[in-house]
Amino acid sequence: MSLNPQYEDIGKGFVQQYYAIFDDPANRANVVNFYSATDSFMTFEGHQIQGAPKILEKVQSLSFQKITRVITTVDSQPTFDGGVLINVLGRLQCDEDPPHAFSQVFVLKANAGTFFVAHDIFRLNIHNSA
Amino acid sequence: MSLNPQYEDIGKGFVQQYYAIFDDPANRANVVNFYSATDSFMTFEGHQIQGAPKILEKVQSLSFQKITRVITTVDSQPTFDGGVLINVLGRLQCDEDPPHAFSQVFVLKANAGTFFVAHDIFRLNIHNSA
Repeated sequence: MSLNPQYEDIGKGFVQQYYAIFDDPANRANVVNFYSATDSFMTFEGHQIQGAPKILEKVQSLSFQKITRVITTVDSQPTFDGGVLINVLGRLQCDEDPPHAFSQVFVLKANAGTFFVAHDIFRLNIHNSA
Repeated sequence: MSLNPQYEDIGKGFVQQYYAIFDDPANRANVVNFYSATDSFMTFEGHQIQGAPKILEKVQSLSFQKITRVITTVDSQPTFDGGVLINVLGRLQCDEDPPHAFSQVFVLKANAGTFFVAHDIFRLNIHNSA
């Protein structure tokens, strides 16, 4: 496989689609469909999880309902196996909590004409250090 | 190739080594040795570059001298081709500029017993949106 010249559009389109589902409490559990049963890694605030069933468990354990999200930047790069590396920076607000900056990295892997999320690293950007 | 069980140590070790070189103005140009002549992608503040020669040009064009950096978190995941995905969050200060939060994503690829940086996405975390 080789570089996908559409990586920029794929990255932006994925981010829009993913958060539209994730940020809707009635729909949130459906993000599990982006992940592979065994070959997906998620690191959520330092907590490491592998495979769609455990990822679903994690997503369903989140206590907030509404998420208001503003995307600041989406940077995408093509990978040599036909996938896309995506780095998202933005701000989000859960319910009535104070808003926070966040970063999320995705690696999309090509599989049978579509993509799944092979890697997902999420962090709120909270810096205790000066 | 398969998952490298040392991914956590490799990620942390790489980050330490990379910034020790990058943050030293006398040594900075040597970061080029982490990249492949053709197969490395860098996105620096949205500017896309491919291959070590152009990456070196970019690094040498940076106008600041001293960088003071504090790492907040390093999250690593193993990739199925034996590499490591790394997400770094931290704060940095260039010369006497105000300090900024930053995020940097690296994908290390295994090659002949060592690693090179296949992907590098750097962003200062500046959010104009509320």
